[in-house]
Amino acid sequence: MELYLVIAVFVGSLLALGFALIMAKRVLSFDEGTEKMKKISASIRSGANAYLKRQYTIVAIFFAVLFVILGVMSIVGLLTPFVPFAFITGGFFSGLSGFIGMKIATAANARTANACRTGLNKGLRVAFSAGSVMGFTVVGLGLLDISIWFTLLKFVFNRDAAEITSAMLTFGMGASSMALFARVGGGIFTKAADVGADLVGKVEAGIPEDDPRNPAVIADNVGDNVGDVAGMGADLYESYVGSVISCSALGVAAFNEQGMGFQAMAIPMIMAALGILCSIIGTFFVRTGEKTEQKLLLKALSRGTNLAAILIAIAAFPLIWFILGKENWMLYFAVLAGLIAGVLIGKATEYFTSDTYKPTKNLASKSETGSATIIIGGLGLGMLSTAIPIIIVGIAVLVAFFVSGGTLQAPQMGLYGIALAAVGMLSTLGITLATDAYGPVADNAGGIAEMSGLEPEVRERTDALDSLGNTTAATGKGFAIGSAALTALALIASYIDKIKSMPAAGEISYDSFSVMNPLVLIGLFIGACLPFVFAALTMDAVGRAAQSVVIEVRRQFKTIKGLMEGKADPDYAKCVDMCSRSSLKEMILPTIIAVVVPVIVGLVLGFYGVVGMLAGATASGFLMAIFMSNSGGAWDNAKKYIEAGHHGGKGSDQHKAAVVGDTVGDPFKDTSGPSINILIKLLSMVSIVFAALVVQFHLLG
Amino acid sequence: MELYLVIAVFVGSLLALGFALIMAKRVLSFDEGTEKMKKISASIRSGANAYLKRQYTIVAIFFAVLFVILGVMSIVGLLTPFVPFAFITGGFFSGLSGFIGMKIATAANARTANACRTGLNKGLRVAFSAGSVMGFTVVGLGLLDISIWFTLLKFVFNRDAAEITSAMLTFGMGASSMALFARVGGGIFTKAADVGADLVGKVEAGIPEDDPRNPAVIADNVGDNVGDVAGMGADLYESYVGSVISCSALGVAAFNEQGMGFQAMAIPMIMAALGILCSIIGTFFVRTGEKTEQKLLLKALSRGTNLAAILIAIAAFPLIWFILGKENWMLYFAVLAGLIAGVLIGKATEYFTSDTYKPTKNLASKSETGSATIIIGGLGLGMLSTAIPIIIVGIAVLVAFFVSGGTLQAPQMGLYGIALAAVGMLSTLGITLATDAYGPVADNAGGIAEMSGLEPEVRERTDALDSLGNTTAATGKGFAIGSAALTALALIASYIDKIKSMPAAGEISYDSFSVMNPLVLIGLFIGACLPFVFAALTMDAVGRAAQSVVIEVRRQFKTIKGLMEGKADPDYAKCVDMCSRSSLKEMILPTIIAVVVPVIVGLVLGFYGVVGMLAGATASGFLMAIFMSNSGGAWDNAKKYIEAGHHGGKGSDQHKAAVVGDTVGDPFKDTSGPSINILIKLLSMVSIVFAALVVQFHLLG
Repeated sequence: MELYLVIAVFVGSLLALGFALIMAKRVLSFDEGTEKMKKISASIRSGANAYLKRQYTIVAIFFAVLFVILGVMSIVGLLTPFVPFAFITGGFFSGLSGFIGMKIATAANARTANACRTGLNKGLRVAFSAGSVMGFTVVGLGLLDISIWFTLLKFVFNRDAAEITSAMLTFGMGASSMALFARVGGGIFTKAADVGADLVGKVEAGIPEDDPRNPAVIADNVGDNVGDVAGMGADLYESYVGSVISCSALGVAAFNEQGMGFQAMAIPMIMAALGILCSIIGTFFVRTGEKTEQKLLLKALSRGTNLAAILIAIAAFPLIWFILGKENWMLYFAVLAGLIAGVLIGKATEYFTSDTYKPTKNLASKSETGSATIIIGGLGLGMLSTAIPIIIVGIAVLVAFFVSGGTLQAPQMGLYGIALAAVGMLSTLGITLATDAYGPVADNAGGIAEMSGLEPEVRERTDALDSLGNTTAATGKGFAIGSAALTALALIASYIDKIKSMPAAGEISYDSFSVMNPLVLIGLFIGACLPFVFAALTMDAVGRAAQSVVIEVRRQFKTIKGLMEGKADPDYAKCVDMCSRSSLKEMILPTIIAVVVPVIVGLVLGFYGVVGMLAGATASGFLMAIFMSNSGGAWDNAKKYIEAGHHGGKGSDQHKAAVVGDTVGDPFKDTSGPSINILIKLLSMVSIVFAALVVQFHLLG
Repeated sequence: MELYLVIAVFVGSLLALGFALIMAKRVLSFDEGTEKMKKISASIRSGANAYLKRQYTIVAIFFAVLFVILGVMSIVGLLTPFVPFAFITGGFFSGLSGFIGMKIATAANARTANACRTGLNKGLRVAFSAGSVMGFTVVGLGLLDISIWFTLLKFVFNRDAAEITSAMLTFGMGASSMALFARVGGGIFTKAADVGADLVGKVEAGIPEDDPRNPAVIADNVGDNVGDVAGMGADLYESYVGSVISCSALGVAAFNEQGMGFQAMAIPMIMAALGILCSIIGTFFVRTGEKTEQKLLLKALSRGTNLAAILIAIAAFPLIWFILGKENWMLYFAVLAGLIAGVLIGKATEYFTSDTYKPTKNLASKSETGSATIIIGGLGLGMLSTAIPIIIVGIAVLVAFFVSGGTLQAPQMGLYGIALAAVGMLSTLGITLATDAYGPVADNAGGIAEMSGLEPEVRERTDALDSLGNTTAATGKGFAIGSAALTALALIASYIDKIKSMPAAGEISYDSFSVMNPLVLIGLFIGACLPFVFAALTMDAVGRAAQSVVIEVRRQFKTIKGLMEGKADPDYAKCVDMCSRSSLKEMILPTIIAVVVPVIVGLVLGFYGVVGMLAGATASGFLMAIFMSNSGGAWDNAKKYIEAGHHGGKGSDQHKAAVVGDTVGDPFKDTSGPSINILIKLLSMVSIVFAALVVQFHLLG
């Protein structure tokens, strides 16, 4: 049984990685275009490489320090000796996912632009293939990591299911730490460059977007790759692996007594492997004609993702029926609940942020009375938009819990069901991520087309692809946020399982954490506060980093002679360096807070406080992530809606007001919002790893 | 014993009301000034009167409907027959508090302006006396309501302590409903008028603030009175009464077994009565010289409030020692914890929002790169500023809980301690509210001075008073938010006590509400979402209402001939009517949501879901209230800081950017933020009243 399991997972992993390789070869088989395009693409590539190298150096220090801390804890017996190594590998694979994604994206940008010279369909194929490389690398590496560790722990060290999942949860912590660095650092980089380029270039100097005379224009394109691509890759690696291992851990807890621990543990892993197969099939159905209409393009992508979702919905049924036995077949509905919830949250996100619906149209009309009203409107829209996802997740959780046989007295089965819902949501990540990651490639292609002076219809085609990317990004965000909430809940349950297993903690059950326990309550307050503080820190960081870019761009405009006349080149590298430097400096504090606070809360308020903190952070983090993503998305699209000729169009006062909204929305949707998803899981992972320490030493409780 | 108690409380109430009467007479003894001042003041008065009359008519319908619903529930035995009547009186007294406050404020505005013609000290005396009328009316009516109901229930109907506190909690629901209507309606009115007047008058027509040619200028002044005064009065009546009765209820629960239920119940009431005495003494120490320096003025006010706080800190000790016995004297530290926490939260608020400190100065400097950066900065500042109050409240809760003898196994005493901390925080409300409520009076006085063309030094003096009002408002907000969180926690405990007393609920204890119970958890998510939705609805309402004012003001500028030349009068009444109409329409939905959601959550998720919802709403409401109040306050003061001549001063681009921030901040700090404080308590009150219904009928749990 165990051997079949590991083989199945391993095969799934190889399938994904092999498919990614084929796609990568396909991308590279296209031509990069003119000399100028090659040159620009090379600058972007070298900037992104240089940034990631520096980022990894800093992250390596962090990992080294934590490796030593975890090593010491292992030696004194607070952790098993696997933990420090699992931690490192999680970080390594998460970083690698981002790195490969970035590599292929920077190779594909000029190729996409060049392919768009031939036609829209060809452009879509290049960009989507690049997105597929990233999507399948993430899931492939995820399952590879899982199967390697499983093989080691099971067949080499002969550990039982509980110990295996426990060790595997630690590589989740490594993956989450890396992901947070990547998201925060990359998010700050991309928005600092974007805001800096716009504020001086567009507003002060009056030159168009992506104009090669703007010294920050390459930095802006580098930012898309290190933030939206490398950051997203690391982020979703973390989500994917986190959902699978937390589900496995809960499966063991729920089914061990019936002697089916391994079976329950296997379900999420095999479902992930099946999801890869379904995703690959889906990719073959993504193609389009030559019309730039959004509807047709969207249909082309949706055909693939919908097919994959339907296939996994069918495949999950026999999987559960045969592995867990027909008496547990109702767990299938937990998977289904997750899948449907993911789709619905995506739809809700689209409704609130796409300019084809009322909310964003309304928001655009608020530009008529200036920037203050569009800001108020966007904030209100984002806050209001939290209600529907909350209800969707609430229903999904209740359905998953009760159909799985969970009861208020014995919730184990139900908690496993909740975790299965998260896995269901993410099982087709291969293809959903492909449709998401292709966006920044198209965005970059547009920039290259502009900078190298290609024909206007090329830009039109890349714009069509880019604009579609905004919609698929909304859907992707729905899955990311929804799965983050469910996985975070599963991780809280895993934390309690961990505590329960420690004799020093006393008699603990899932029922021990009443909100009326003042330690739980204060933990809840502190936890709920963390996403606010985290959002504040990351937003401020973007502000400060952008400020430094603004100063540098102004300096170049002033001191480089002939720059505005196009006779001299700006010093692109200096701006890239500026963004790197400040984003790397700024990414450290937020991440350290995320790692240190759970330990401090544990040492002061004990594990009661930790559980409260995790629940509070999950609830408020979910809300803040949706609020910030949707406000930001709506402002962005309201601006685009105005640029399309409504409310005065480009250059009008209304447009200026909308640009203010969009600028506020930038760090909202691309830095703070997505980072919070990682934050809430990292808090749980850290708590799990330091659980033994906290049970031994705590001030209260 | 019971008789002494009721006499002491009754005496305290009469003392407060008598003092308010003396202060009112003193205010009225001053002269209203010139004919023009009298005329302007009369228009403001009549506008405010007309608005409140219409507001009360709508509120009366709401109360009538709920009276019938509660009446039916009483008849079928789900409630005691006192409930519908208690509900009505709570609403009545809350409304009356706001009404009297508004009456005296509209009588005092011209008198303050006129007094400022003689000197600053005289102006301060008039404005502060008017604030005192409001402060002492609120506390006087609060204790009057409490003592009347106590007398009725104890001496006429002969009920025991548990039944008395249970019935009294329902007038809390009446008070909170009224307060929410007043705060939301008044908040929308005042900000719609303010934003509307500014957008057309200042920005489009280019006339100064408070210019009599602006058709919305009277509406703006009316708004100060119906929002900042009447709204605040109703709001703080609710806070005051809520903290006292929830504390009494928990006292009965904690001490009934030892036969000291009445004593424990009496403590918060007598402490409130003593607080009135201390506050009155404090008021005699408020006086200033003729220098308009902020520091000196602030000292004048602080002298009074600090003295009152010190006196009650001293008086609380013998009170607890003698009434609860020396074995319970440690409860004194719970009171002290509350008092100190209130002061510290006020200081933290001041730190984050006053332009004498770094955060607001920094924020002002962000105007250099435009409105987007100042908006991002202000949002970040507000979010970051939640951390310190959370920690302060956390420590206060833990101290109050553990010094009172609460344990994780038997938390009753500790919960009583938390409620005592809230009472401690609010015990000197008489004087703290006086220093808070005087602000809008001074603000109005400034408007009248401007409109009636008084000498510039008069405006200088009223500005000095007004600006001081901003600081005291920050402190007041600290108390309001801090006490709201503590009272909300106490009310959750009361809710659980209520459920525990119902046999149909089964075996329930404080420990039954684990965050891992999916019903509690989903309740928590929904509860945490409510402040977001509520903030969104109220912000949007302000936006829509302001829009209607904008259109009306534009119309008058266009159609009334000679208006801009000062030859014709604008139609002030039309603008007042416009604001009334839209604010009254807009206040209904948010309030209904606050009343209906807890019932629906209860009917679907049962009482487990309700407890989760209340905990979630308290945590996220506390955060949102601080975030929105502090962001708004900081933007306001950053603008003032720039107007004082920094970063380019008035009229510069930086100033324009800061005005955008201030406009976004208006609904943040004066509509949504303060309403959320009421919301979190109203949710609990409604849950308590409908507890029997929910225990009988619920879908899950």
